[in-house]
Amino acid sequence: MSAERVSDLGEFGVIDRLLAALPVEARAAQADVLVAAGDDAAVMQMPSGRVQIVTADALVEGIHFRLDWTDWDSLGHKALAVNISDVAAMGGTPSVAVVTLGLRGDELVADLESMYRGMGELARRHGVVIVGGDIVRVATERLVAITVIGHAGRDQLMVRSAARAGDAIGVTGTIGAAAAGFEILRDPERFAHSATAPRLVRSHLRPEPRVDAARLLVEHGVRAAMDLSDGLAGDLPKMLSASGVSAEIEEDRLPVIAAVRALFPGRWVDLGLRGGEDYELLFTIPADRWDALERDAASQAITVTRIGTILESGDRPELYLLRRSGERERLPVGAFDHFG
Amino acid sequence: MSAERVSDLGEFGVIDRLLAALPVEARAAQADVLVAAGDDAAVMQMPSGRVQIVTADALVEGIHFRLDWTDWDSLGHKALAVNISDVAAMGGTPSVAVVTLGLRGDELVADLESMYRGMGELARRHGVVIVGGDIVRVATERLVAITVIGHAGRDQLMVRSAARAGDAIGVTGTIGAAAAGFEILRDPERFAHSATAPRLVRSHLRPEPRVDAARLLVEHGVRAAMDLSDGLAGDLPKMLSASGVSAEIEEDRLPVIAAVRALFPGRWVDLGLRGGEDYELLFTIPADRWDALERDAASQAITVTRIGTILESGDRPELYLLRRSGERERLPVGAFDHFG
Repeated sequence: MSAERVSDLGEFGVIDRLLAALPVEARAAQADVLVAAGDDAAVMQMPSGRVQIVTADALVEGIHFRLDWTDWDSLGHKALAVNISDVAAMGGTPSVAVVTLGLRGDELVADLESMYRGMGELARRHGVVIVGGDIVRVATERLVAITVIGHAGRDQLMVRSAARAGDAIGVTGTIGAAAAGFEILRDPERFAHSATAPRLVRSHLRPEPRVDAARLLVEHGVRAAMDLSDGLAGDLPKMLSASGVSAEIEEDRLPVIAAVRALFPGRWVDLGLRGGEDYELLFTIPADRWDALERDAASQAITVTRIGTILESGDRPELYLLRRSGERERLPVGAFDHFG
Repeated sequence: MSAERVSDLGEFGVIDRLLAALPVEARAAQADVLVAAGDDAAVMQMPSGRVQIVTADALVEGIHFRLDWTDWDSLGHKALAVNISDVAAMGGTPSVAVVTLGLRGDELVADLESMYRGMGELARRHGVVIVGGDIVRVATERLVAITVIGHAGRDQLMVRSAARAGDAIGVTGTIGAAAAGFEILRDPERFAHSATAPRLVRSHLRPEPRVDAARLLVEHGVRAAMDLSDGLAGDLPKMLSASGVSAEIEEDRLPVIAAVRALFPGRWVDLGLRGGEDYELLFTIPADRWDALERDAASQAITVTRIGTILESGDRPELYLLRRSGERERLPVGAFDHFG
């Protein structure tokens, strides 16, 4: 028996090994499972001809949230938002959420009601119905684990494996704000007098899943997309690996808002590249369709920014960053690993 | 703001309050949600005319499992089994499982592969495909959270609310063995010389979801069922409350196996009544159909035992136990509460 540990292989290496440990019949290579592990969500063909999208994500106290940093309403919002975001990133419409809470028992019921109000308000806006509400006891760290089910037309799916050489690379909204908010929460004294700090903190605590933007992307024929949870430099390589392509992105084009640049003058590029939890959409589209997409997006008050180009891959996927200096730098390819 | 805590209201009281905190549009009273919180699983009407069944259950280290008691293969088996059991208890056929692991990082990959083999073997036997395999980091207690999706014909659903006065009350298999196994794990020295102890421990560690038995029940027109996770005296009252009926069960008829009676001479009735985690099916059926069901079950090597009768309810549901002495005792109605 090998003595490898989870922290040696990392999250994604472990997942590959675990799926390989399943008997063939229990693996997702079955005909009606279109997309399995490794994308934002699993996708199954339904008898109706449409596809069903299922995603499950858990927030664990101490790792994903701290109760001295978040209010309960925002916690409920975020726990659902990250799951809706996964469905949107596949091109789907979310419809149902199943919630499992891990509680110690000493929680105030009023706090939990507040959490459900935050969750419920986001659900309402996106037409999601919250069913279930299982509660399990935990000894130490609380958790909120949510499964969201959505659906899509089969030809509307956006996956990580569909990026093609020549595609323009785009992101919705802005990047780095959530990571900036996280830095502010870690050192509140330092930012106590900043007028923009609360807005950045809010970006971290209450991400907005980009369901409308995803719909627009689908309408414009986008086939390759994922949501940004582990930062651009962490997530884009996953898409490159899945698609077998390389990419160049340009530092000058990173959509990092002025507030982040102002508060973190020496670090904003790093926050934009490596900061996680923005839950914006990263996508690629044939370059000749970019202008039409950008025009339509603007008319719907959706921001999309072209940040680079997909390239043919050599032996293996590479990610290049064109610095403002004109220097072309090779970024390490490999996702952010929670066990790294 | 009220100062009520989770432990004051209990699991089910809290769930009711949380669902009430949702905006109406996000609540499961929507037309296409047929069954929501409070049953074994949520049920949604699909465009195809069939219904979809979704259930999510998590096992948390220290609360639901201990790694010095279980092997990893059994842990994987059980984490999936309890979810398949929920789908079966609704009359459904499970098809897809989404797995979220909460890991610390120091786990041996070989152990996790063993867990997936246990999970995969059970999945294979029931035609379930395991998709996904999300891993989140936890600081202390590991967890295995699984969502299982299944489907059924709309007229095949078994729910908790369909028990009717005059119905026979039945259970599949035997009860109390898992609880006996738990007692043995807690005090292994005492049972070190028992030849039957390992089998009881196995009942606790590797419950078998009763999918075949559920199919038989559906064929015989059973409409009221649930799985036994919190013990007969904990679970039957949930069915009584949901159906607005009372019940009488008979001590003499409790299907507690000889090994449990022998090892726990003074406690076997209690283990049968209050011991949890058997994952057998509790159901009711019009009394005149009992014999046909029992005959068919026997021909398929499925054990069903008639343990009592559903009664008209007075002001509120009551559960009576007819003791071997002939004495009729009223059992406290109210589910086992993890926060009690």
